[in-house]
Amino acid sequence: MSEDRDRLDTLEDARLAPYLPLLYVAWADGELADFEIDAICAQVSAREGVDGGCARLLGRWLDPEDPPSALELRRLLTAIRHAGAHLDEEPTSLAALGARLAEERGARVGDAERSALEALQGTLGGESAEAVRALLEPARVEPAPVSREAPFDVAALTILLDGPRVAIRRRVRALLSQPGFSYRADLAIADYREEVLTWCRRLAAEGLGALGLPVEHGGGGDPGAFIAAFETLAHHDLSLLTKFGVQFGLFAGAIHQLGTDQHHERYLRRAGTLELPGCFAMTETGHGSNVSELATVCRFDRERSEFDLYTPDRSAWKDYIGNAAAHGRMAVVFAQLEIDGEAYGVHAFLVPIRDEKGLVLPGVSVEDDGPKLGLNGVDNGRLAFDHVRLPRESLLDRFSRVDADGVYSSPIASPGRRFFTMLGTLVGGRVSVALASLSAAKSALTIAVRYAAERRQFGAAGEPETLLLDYPSHQRRLLPRLATTYALHFALRDLARRYVDSPPEERREVETAAAGLKAIATWHCTDTVQACREACGGQGYLAANRFAALKADSDVFTTFEGDNTVLLQLVAKGLLSGYRKQFGDMSFLDLLRWVTGRAGAAIQELNPLVARETASRHLRDPAFQVGLLRWREDHLLGSVARRLKRRLDTGVEPTAAFAACQNHLLALAEAHVDRIVLERAGEGVESAGDSAGILRPVVALHGLHRLEAASAWLQEHGAFEGGKSRAVRNEVDALCSELRPAARGLVDAFAIPDALLAAPIAT
Amino acid sequence: MSEDRDRLDTLEDARLAPYLPLLYVAWADGELADFEIDAICAQVSAREGVDGGCARLLGRWLDPEDPPSALELRRLLTAIRHAGAHLDEEPTSLAALGARLAEERGARVGDAERSALEALQGTLGGESAEAVRALLEPARVEPAPVSREAPFDVAALTILLDGPRVAIRRRVRALLSQPGFSYRADLAIADYREEVLTWCRRLAAEGLGALGLPVEHGGGGDPGAFIAAFETLAHHDLSLLTKFGVQFGLFAGAIHQLGTDQHHERYLRRAGTLELPGCFAMTETGHGSNVSELATVCRFDRERSEFDLYTPDRSAWKDYIGNAAAHGRMAVVFAQLEIDGEAYGVHAFLVPIRDEKGLVLPGVSVEDDGPKLGLNGVDNGRLAFDHVRLPRESLLDRFSRVDADGVYSSPIASPGRRFFTMLGTLVGGRVSVALASLSAAKSALTIAVRYAAERRQFGAAGEPETLLLDYPSHQRRLLPRLATTYALHFALRDLARRYVDSPPEERREVETAAAGLKAIATWHCTDTVQACREACGGQGYLAANRFAALKADSDVFTTFEGDNTVLLQLVAKGLLSGYRKQFGDMSFLDLLRWVTGRAGAAIQELNPLVARETASRHLRDPAFQVGLLRWREDHLLGSVARRLKRRLDTGVEPTAAFAACQNHLLALAEAHVDRIVLERAGEGVESAGDSAGILRPVVALHGLHRLEAASAWLQEHGAFEGGKSRAVRNEVDALCSELRPAARGLVDAFAIPDALLAAPIAT
Repeated sequence: MSEDRDRLDTLEDARLAPYLPLLYVAWADGELADFEIDAICAQVSAREGVDGGCARLLGRWLDPEDPPSALELRRLLTAIRHAGAHLDEEPTSLAALGARLAEERGARVGDAERSALEALQGTLGGESAEAVRALLEPARVEPAPVSREAPFDVAALTILLDGPRVAIRRRVRALLSQPGFSYRADLAIADYREEVLTWCRRLAAEGLGALGLPVEHGGGGDPGAFIAAFETLAHHDLSLLTKFGVQFGLFAGAIHQLGTDQHHERYLRRAGTLELPGCFAMTETGHGSNVSELATVCRFDRERSEFDLYTPDRSAWKDYIGNAAAHGRMAVVFAQLEIDGEAYGVHAFLVPIRDEKGLVLPGVSVEDDGPKLGLNGVDNGRLAFDHVRLPRESLLDRFSRVDADGVYSSPIASPGRRFFTMLGTLVGGRVSVALASLSAAKSALTIAVRYAAERRQFGAAGEPETLLLDYPSHQRRLLPRLATTYALHFALRDLARRYVDSPPEERREVETAAAGLKAIATWHCTDTVQACREACGGQGYLAANRFAALKADSDVFTTFEGDNTVLLQLVAKGLLSGYRKQFGDMSFLDLLRWVTGRAGAAIQELNPLVARETASRHLRDPAFQVGLLRWREDHLLGSVARRLKRRLDTGVEPTAAFAACQNHLLALAEAHVDRIVLERAGEGVESAGDSAGILRPVVALHGLHRLEAASAWLQEHGAFEGGKSRAVRNEVDALCSELRPAARGLVDAFAIPDALLAAPIAT
Repeated sequence: MSEDRDRLDTLEDARLAPYLPLLYVAWADGELADFEIDAICAQVSAREGVDGGCARLLGRWLDPEDPPSALELRRLLTAIRHAGAHLDEEPTSLAALGARLAEERGARVGDAERSALEALQGTLGGESAEAVRALLEPARVEPAPVSREAPFDVAALTILLDGPRVAIRRRVRALLSQPGFSYRADLAIADYREEVLTWCRRLAAEGLGALGLPVEHGGGGDPGAFIAAFETLAHHDLSLLTKFGVQFGLFAGAIHQLGTDQHHERYLRRAGTLELPGCFAMTETGHGSNVSELATVCRFDRERSEFDLYTPDRSAWKDYIGNAAAHGRMAVVFAQLEIDGEAYGVHAFLVPIRDEKGLVLPGVSVEDDGPKLGLNGVDNGRLAFDHVRLPRESLLDRFSRVDADGVYSSPIASPGRRFFTMLGTLVGGRVSVALASLSAAKSALTIAVRYAAERRQFGAAGEPETLLLDYPSHQRRLLPRLATTYALHFALRDLARRYVDSPPEERREVETAAAGLKAIATWHCTDTVQACREACGGQGYLAANRFAALKADSDVFTTFEGDNTVLLQLVAKGLLSGYRKQFGDMSFLDLLRWVTGRAGAAIQELNPLVARETASRHLRDPAFQVGLLRWREDHLLGSVARRLKRRLDTGVEPTAAFAACQNHLLALAEAHVDRIVLERAGEGVESAGDSAGILRPVVALHGLHRLEAASAWLQEHGAFEGGKSRAVRNEVDALCSELRPAARGLVDAFAIPDALLAAPIAT
């Protein structure tokens, strides 16, 4: 007790004055470990510019064995507030506040001491005006009530988000809001499939299906508009979306991109109007991801100058094929081409499977995949072929021809490159699924944020209960995911633009980006829909509030159009090859020799000071965030390349070497996607005009949240010190709280019509 | 080039010999950052016992500006292997190998140098026989083929897992495997509900429903057996599980635990046979988690000496009530008791809602909750009461009575304690849901692991494709989750035992544990089912393979019987009060004063050496793992207590203070559950007899995986250095690979009958 009084007396000592604010922060928030207090103490006393007497005074306040009591802390705070009350203008940091307090008492703070103060502040994280304000103002008992008015221009943000394709987006929203498109939860599977087909025909009749096909075959000639329409459709029933994608994106798209004039002439118009419903029959029961090992065979019969298509065994049945179980008349079938016993690899063939009346044709077997976890409005099924004879024109022959004598020719000499060029037709599907998954996440967030802004639960006695959105844990659930949704919005729109516009030499880069963004966006969707469902509690579990459909239907996005884990490995391999060459052509060793050299040069030294800097301004700085993500990516690229190289050097077979480094490769791919998403988002903000004001903290939250997720690795590698990792976490919390008043406006800006949300808790 | 040759010459230098293995490891795996190489170099040269010439030699090999080329690394390896080939026995660490290499060359390694070697090894993580073996043996091109035979006694493990309740578990498994219990995916909702009711009656006829009720009312008098039956039921359709739980656990359970003889006499037998289907009507549309603010009113009418039950507004409708929409005849209704205008808090009343013919009684309104995300075999609905008159005996009066004159009395004086005692009846539900969610996770893992052990995809040219389970990324997906499932198994079985057996003074502790474990186990279930679905790709999306039902039905486990986030806050508050007092009674400041004192004393100093130690033996040591989790828990407890105290000291209202520290409180609760799960699992291993051999690495994997998840925090707080964090990650990978041959046996040991799994890909 007498000790307490002693120590309290020192509060009047002018030498201690500059340190008071930092002393208070050091103890008050209870976040410092004892050993850190030790470190701070050591830091201060070792510092020039702090005289010995002052260091002793500080030492008394920083003794881990004798922490300040509640009374002492309160007195300390009172002393600071008392002195702070006389200041004309508010200092911008705790160090500055300390210096002012010292001046108030007639003491001078020299340069050396000022730098000691700033070092201490760097450790404690007090470099923000908010920290000062929190100290000078009495603690508020409750947060200020949030206005229902959005603190920014929501309509302007919607215009920005809609972008250049605004017309088609508005048209699709209006169309889907018509009563004919009302959701039908009451239908049995067979009826549901028919309803989805009817919806799909209605969209085709509006010209939406053919938007991306050539004008000369009845199309709109505008692939970008097709993708925008698809993205907007994803706010509606995802079975409709999938059926639409199968018919117009995959089936018509394959004819368009893999076929030549004769095929376009004969089929494109009917495919684009849905007069000819079709399938895209690539996946087999035994082979999904490993397309090059598909087992269906298409043998050229030289005698009759035609093909013989057959399914050699049960595992070679085409599986999960949309439009196969009920509606498809024709299928693009991927099969191993054989001529005279020689294998030419996977090629695509046009195969009739049902007649005009919908009866299955001879030689074709069909099975229904039956009920699925979701997407039950799509008639997925299995197909097998028992020596179905196909005319020579059935081969989609843009990249490879077989003439009447069975002579094979191709404009692309390398079989590997030919194969990957053919698979390139899948890229459009990946771009579209990534965008669709983002739309689903937007729907879920809109419902959950609106609910959280209305629903109250618990609170102080005698007060209205607290809004869910005012709870920090609820903000943590929803706001970083909302921020990531915005960041992905910019990254995916940029991807879609590049997919449509980019020159052939950038094709491989776009493909790598599509693979990576598809994986990250679809996982984000699964995670976000789940978090939103839980955030809505029991209401979220009722089918009426849409999460049932959103969850179940979007779940397979992580699997179809390429399993996410497989896609991320593609990304990693793409990074290793530095976009320079096609995969099939370069020896792994050559490639790695190049990468190892490149990575060593690319990784920059980290400035050790940056590992400690904790100012809010710094943490939110896009240059800091992107730079650190790029450093991580380069580091992982270099280290995995060295690991691979060592294995290959010692004679390990490449597949085995890759398998051994698989988790490392996946980490590299994720780091890469993290970086490009944040870069694209940053560019989006820079060109956002008046909306940049609200988007800047949103994207900063996304970036910081990614750094928070990577913190263990960043600390391991010396990029973060402990205090910085903590500061990042606190800044994420601060941004969540800061963005809370904008949350409702941020989801409203997605402009999803109430008729499409159709969740009573949100409309 | 000439430099290369120079450096290569030093390989013959005996002074360098002890360092060769560590040098190779430092460079070869490509995981070291430049600054770490610097640090190692500094460490070596600063060390006594390393002479200057040797330090210079080392420096040449450790120059980040001039890393060894592939040729140099290969020569280095060759030199090591050449020297190592002559050793009679294999050294157990890289340091020991280095010492032997030096001896081979006639050099002596002194104590000081040996300690330098060991310090270096600690940094690099080479303290394992495997590291030595990997160095001395040429890299294997592919992993050794895995035997289909389990490497341990699966039957013995099943016996261990079944535990003392083996008889009831076997009986339930056999019963549910009968054709009458085959899954029905083809039914419309109304028919599905009837089928589930029929199943439920069949279970009741077998005496399963009444297992936990008193013998004198036709029950089995064995609550432990009831819980074991419930846990086993959760391998079947979860609608059946839920209906069973509502009827026998919640409805009959509430009558049993909140009622007195008259209620038991009149209703328990009929509730236990399902002759009287009933509801547990607590939750309202406007109030789920915040039970004390329920708005339904039950007013005592002194004139007629009876109650008047009414629903004041729309938000006070009882909602999500199982058995309400179709089958319930009676409901236990929770309502605010009012006598003479005075509020007595929430009490439970027995209310008839339908007559014998199933017609809804006058004054009662029923709505169907309609289709749900899952559990559509349960008839959830809403109930409202329009001044329903109830006789005085309707009050379940174990803890509070109202006599004919309207005089209220209770054996528990404090309203707060009375309320929490009443809510204590929910604990059985939480224990049961936690166990059920674990059963669902076991089902999902059994399907996914079996599929991964059969399914092949990709691989080296000319070889059979690789089994999914042989991919490190696939092991990472499934094996840590399998390990956590085992750890939770032991923790939840212990919880169930304590729930049944523990004396009243441990009641509060059991309640806290039930709340925390329910939250963690149900989130684990959601996460595991999702990961397993994705791991099965397209097959996982087909309803036939069970994930559709497992996902949809188990999803609400995180919400019902207490929202997980709310439950974790209960846990944190329980920890703050140190189990010493009931919540309502202790002032927050008193409580925090106590905790702050306690936490300061409890947090032990971390041994700084432990932050660096990376030996496999150490990392897997349960004492290390549990000790670190406990340290984190104590640290979080102390720091959050200090934060709360500061706010309360400065006059912040307690609810607001708790809200401000909410994320910190949740972190504390999770840290606590992490620790008790690992402790219980460790105890399980210790008493596992012959099965301990396989369980030890399983539980070690769980523990390390939890530490890996906490690594950012542990590094922030000085408990991990960077090298240790990396070592933990590598050890998780190593354990995954080590347990891969046991994976199939580990899921087979769950003994889930094929008829219940019912997934073609797994049976």
